[in-house]
Amino acid sequence: MKKVKVGIVGLGRLGMRHASNLMFRIPNAELVAACSVKQDEVDYVRESWGVAAGYTDFDEFLKNEDMEAVVIVSPSGQHCEQIGKAMARGLHVFSEKPLGVDVAQCRQAERAVEAHPELVFQLGFMRRFDPSYAAAKQMIREGRIGKPFLVKCTSLDPDSRIDSFLPFAPTSGGIFRDLTVHDIDLARWLLESDVTRITAAGGCYKYDELAKCDDVDNAVALMEFKNGTVALFDSGRIAPHGSHVETEIQGTEGMLRIAVVPEKNRVLIYDQTGAVQQCAEDFLERWAEAFQLEMQEFIDCISEGRRPEVTVYDGTKCTEITYAATEALHTHKTVELD
Amino acid sequence: MKKVKVGIVGLGRLGMRHASNLMFRIPNAELVAACSVKQDEVDYVRESWGVAAGYTDFDEFLKNEDMEAVVIVSPSGQHCEQIGKAMARGLHVFSEKPLGVDVAQCRQAERAVEAHPELVFQLGFMRRFDPSYAAAKQMIREGRIGKPFLVKCTSLDPDSRIDSFLPFAPTSGGIFRDLTVHDIDLARWLLESDVTRITAAGGCYKYDELAKCDDVDNAVALMEFKNGTVALFDSGRIAPHGSHVETEIQGTEGMLRIAVVPEKNRVLIYDQTGAVQQCAEDFLERWAEAFQLEMQEFIDCISEGRRPEVTVYDGTKCTEITYAATEALHTHKTVELD
Amino acid sequence: MKKVKVGIVGLGRLGMRHASNLMFRIPNAELVAACSVKQDEVDYVRESWGVAAGYTDFDEFLKNEDMEAVVIVSPSGQHCEQIGKAMARGLHVFSEKPLGVDVAQCRQAERAVEAHPELVFQLGFMRRFDPSYAAAKQMIREGRIGKPFLVKCTSLDPDSRIDSFLPFAPTSGGIFRDLTVHDIDLARWLLESDVTRITAAGGCYKYDELAKCDDVDNAVALMEFKNGTVALFDSGRIAPHGSHVETEIQGTEGMLRIAVVPEKNRVLIYDQTGAVQQCAEDFLERWAEAFQLEMQEFIDCISEGRRPEVTVYDGTKCTEITYAATEALHTHKTVELD
Amino acid sequence: MKKVKVGIVGLGRLGMRHASNLMFRIPNAELVAACSVKQDEVDYVRESWGVAAGYTDFDEFLKNEDMEAVVIVSPSGQHCEQIGKAMARGLHVFSEKPLGVDVAQCRQAERAVEAHPELVFQLGFMRRFDPSYAAAKQMIREGRIGKPFLVKCTSLDPDSRIDSFLPFAPTSGGIFRDLTVHDIDLARWLLESDVTRITAAGGCYKYDELAKCDDVDNAVALMEFKNGTVALFDSGRIAPHGSHVETEIQGTEGMLRIAVVPEKNRVLIYDQTGAVQQCAEDFLERWAEAFQLEMQEFIDCISEGRRPEVTVYDGTKCTEITYAATEALHTHKTVELD
Repeated sequence: MKKVKVGIVGLGRLGMRHASNLMFRIPNAELVAACSVKQDEVDYVRESWGVAAGYTDFDEFLKNEDMEAVVIVSPSGQHCEQIGKAMARGLHVFSEKPLGVDVAQCRQAERAVEAHPELVFQLGFMRRFDPSYAAAKQMIREGRIGKPFLVKCTSLDPDSRIDSFLPFAPTSGGIFRDLTVHDIDLARWLLESDVTRITAAGGCYKYDELAKCDDVDNAVALMEFKNGTVALFDSGRIAPHGSHVETEIQGTEGMLRIAVVPEKNRVLIYDQTGAVQQCAEDFLERWAEAFQLEMQEFIDCISEGRRPEVTVYDGTKCTEITYAATEALHTHKTVELD
Repeated sequence: MKKVKVGIVGLGRLGMRHASNLMFRIPNAELVAACSVKQDEVDYVRESWGVAAGYTDFDEFLKNEDMEAVVIVSPSGQHCEQIGKAMARGLHVFSEKPLGVDVAQCRQAERAVEAHPELVFQLGFMRRFDPSYAAAKQMIREGRIGKPFLVKCTSLDPDSRIDSFLPFAPTSGGIFRDLTVHDIDLARWLLESDVTRITAAGGCYKYDELAKCDDVDNAVALMEFKNGTVALFDSGRIAPHGSHVETEIQGTEGMLRIAVVPEKNRVLIYDQTGAVQQCAEDFLERWAEAFQLEMQEFIDCISEGRRPEVTVYDGTKCTEITYAATEALHTHKTVELD
Repeated sequence: MKKVKVGIVGLGRLGMRHASNLMFRIPNAELVAACSVKQDEVDYVRESWGVAAGYTDFDEFLKNEDMEAVVIVSPSGQHCEQIGKAMARGLHVFSEKPLGVDVAQCRQAERAVEAHPELVFQLGFMRRFDPSYAAAKQMIREGRIGKPFLVKCTSLDPDSRIDSFLPFAPTSGGIFRDLTVHDIDLARWLLESDVTRITAAGGCYKYDELAKCDDVDNAVALMEFKNGTVALFDSGRIAPHGSHVETEIQGTEGMLRIAVVPEKNRVLIYDQTGAVQQCAEDFLERWAEAFQLEMQEFIDCISEGRRPEVTVYDGTKCTEITYAATEALHTHKTVELD
Repeated sequence: MKKVKVGIVGLGRLGMRHASNLMFRIPNAELVAACSVKQDEVDYVRESWGVAAGYTDFDEFLKNEDMEAVVIVSPSGQHCEQIGKAMARGLHVFSEKPLGVDVAQCRQAERAVEAHPELVFQLGFMRRFDPSYAAAKQMIREGRIGKPFLVKCTSLDPDSRIDSFLPFAPTSGGIFRDLTVHDIDLARWLLESDVTRITAAGGCYKYDELAKCDDVDNAVALMEFKNGTVALFDSGRIAPHGSHVETEIQGTEGMLRIAVVPEKNRVLIYDQTGAVQQCAEDFLERWAEAFQLEMQEFIDCISEGRRPEVTVYDGTKCTEITYAATEALHTHKTVELD
């Protein structure tokens, strides 16, 4: 089996998850280089895992001639520039979401991707790869629920992680761009159409300090789609029970609900509280399998010369929509997209 | 035990449910008179149950001197007039929802109620009396979930009942006034505030014929409340599995979900399909206990000289809101309430 | 509607439940007399509910000429004698389980019932009347799960009620006769056959004091039936979460499970513990509907001249089996029944 | 990272699962040799995966000097002999269950393991490695449910796989040795004690042909343990819904239930049937993660010089117990173990 040689940039929590998947769980991938602005993170993967090459500078990293593909897990503001540089170097690219922090950046990334039709580009909307979401999509394709007309998306980050979020809040872009973006990708994917009209609302119900950076701790949105379908969203940062992502798809002949309870495992505890199901603690636990499967798909696309289903245009669209949703939230006015 | 002597007007499906509860399941009530425009319905309760007096004319019915209270289950357009006449006769009144078909009618009913502070008036928002909704409200009162900030309401009528709905559709007032009205009462009750802004969308996804009467088979709405909280609604008429009413309340310290699956009973079936939970067939099955408990409360309020929690003003507010929601749906514009 | 005039003997917790059902929730019944050795209990129902006649002596009670039927909720040891006396007086009889505290008593009751084929006799195996159990039995009758071959029965009393049980333990007859007896009735009913062989085990895992009266706090049994089918039982008194009665029926084409979680209501709580379903606190809460429905059936059988499905022979059989099971538990030997 | 070089014998369904885990999902393992009596199976892994060496003869296979460890997935009757030969060659051994087909064989394997304290030996009771079972055991260790006193084990193979089982039935050893053995290991592990007394029953309820090889399609057992605790078992081959393995542990302060529904994924389908949860199709789907984790543990034990928790003695004990259970089933008599 020929292995795809991959370099990674960004070794934070999510970066390390991708790195370890590439290192240990993707048989046809080989992690040959790693880049982070933090020397100790680079040292760790070199010394503990034996990754051949380490860098603290992205441009130096790109000069590594061993790499065939790059996985970008750097801060959001750097994604598009790095996509452009990597593809110019002839490298396949996997980039974490969001594609870019504004639409202009996204257009730049689109041009880079279009200039290299021979290269694979995949965006990190991992939820599509979760086996339950994949099964739901497959059932829809098979007509199991008739024509889908309503998607309801809930994304609740655990309150237990709020301390690690608050310092990051000012640069997060706000709840729609940072959190709801995943749901927007799901809704577009499941309804097979694009958003035309957005209304939003929300508030700082628990963490007033978020108001300082024009953000909220919970928000809702109603979006209408070109094909007449609709979606409802609620996103929050204060779930007491864990990392709760739930999606419902109503169709003309049936409906599907994914993850009513974000079960940590299959153990039901009967105690003085009642019958208790423990929940997934954070997104890394909830999406462990999805992160692995999306990376496997990226590597397989390279090996087999296939195109990933998630395109650069999905990234641009989601960025547009999250900007519009944020405007709707701030202005209390319905925003139309063309 | 002194029994409250009650008369009922309207002996359709829901009327018969109320009548049989008064007859057989409310120990301190006595059904002494019944009125319906259909003679055979009147004959049935007189002959089968031994109800003392039967009428086909409301004004004749009101002359019955035996009655202390009236239960109004007539067509919606007659509620307010009948409320006025009955209270003028010195009778306690229970009226089915909606209070009236327009706000002017509701104001008229308000005046009738205000003119008779000695009489009990209760409006038929029975969901509040369902033991699960009552338990949820109680937990909220006790601070179990902190401060509620988001309510999500789903009301899906079963597709199996569409044939009985379609003929009634033209006079139903549309999905928000006919179906979502219950959810709006719940949201106001749970969030303890009033609606200020409404956006809505929807469509005829399965039954195009509803378009002819300016109605839809599914609709969603986003509503903002005076106290900064929000609610999401989705209502539909095509649920394949049964009568599905589900409500979620998110609070700053926890969340409650009522009836994720509208279970018919406690039997789980394992067969070739998988693990199957059968669902409640219609609203009469789902709310059997609630219908009984709300009527018990009405009778107890009379016996004990108490006031029901559900007031005439709740009826007016819900009518205002459903009108505004219907406008939002038709105009595709956000509607503000003052 | 002609009402059946009923007297009740025994006004403890369960007696009061039956009495209040007869008084308030069975439209075609009228509670005309009550008997208890405790004068204050008799006074209560006379004064609060207006029951016409009260007695502290059973023989005096039986002389009441107004009664057509008697409901026996006295201590187990008195059931059979009271059944005999009541039927001799020409009264229909509903008796709580167990039929008798030994088989000889049960035979005596059988003779009384046989001597009065014109009278209705019903034994208080209320679980059969619970809507979920009734639905399961109906599905079996319709062939939904093929031929049933295994029944698994769990009956766990809540630990929170142990203080009220312990004083009663010495006269309870032991866990099989007091608690498992309900499951044995269910297994016979669902498997449509009779027990031929019993093995049992158990222990005082939490409450050593039960050993003093030759009882255990938890026990299990394996029973084989004449038609080759089998049943497993586990019964206990220390459930931390509530009153847990669960039954599984495996058939050749499917299986049914009743009450995996003994849900208190339809509210799911998401909090720091996880997703929590509160449970029924005790048997009166769990079986509220079943107690009412079994009494309704008794009264309807009288009114309509029908025979109840639960017979006196079911009572004898269950008593035989619980004796044999208790012997198996104490001797650690398999006990055969003929 | 130093990789442990492993050879595998047996390339049937389960053998291929272990082989692919070693090949692709255990980072610190390297599959260097494979052995099967079927040449085409050997060819497949050599050609498709590039496994260096292939054999159709076990003794030739053992001569491969590259191997440090052997994974035995051959027919049950060969396990013990192969364990002996492999350990004599100085190889670490992972053997599938059952350890041996009779107790004499198991003792032989014990001697082989005892003769090589420097080598790792692990038996394939993979269920212990399933994250839910591991979590349950951890909760028990932490005292979460007090002292466990009752374990209830259900193992139901899917009816959809009966055609592949029937030809294998005559050599399977019967339902207790082939299927219930996993539950017996779980019960011993969870109750931390050994079986002293067994009663069993069962029958051919759907597949009469199993009677020809003295087997049944469903069986139950009651087992008592040295420390006074008890366990109930039901095992079957005709589950309509999928591969159903469920375990309950009752403790003095709480109870745990694992996999009430053997969920295929997190999708709940609402359709005309009701609310439907699809189930795991077979044991390979249900235990995918457990098979990987047990093999990871074997490799890690070798790398780190640790001992696996599952010992050769667990294998002997389980074999003894399944023999006794089979005897109890056939003789209808309680069997005592010393």
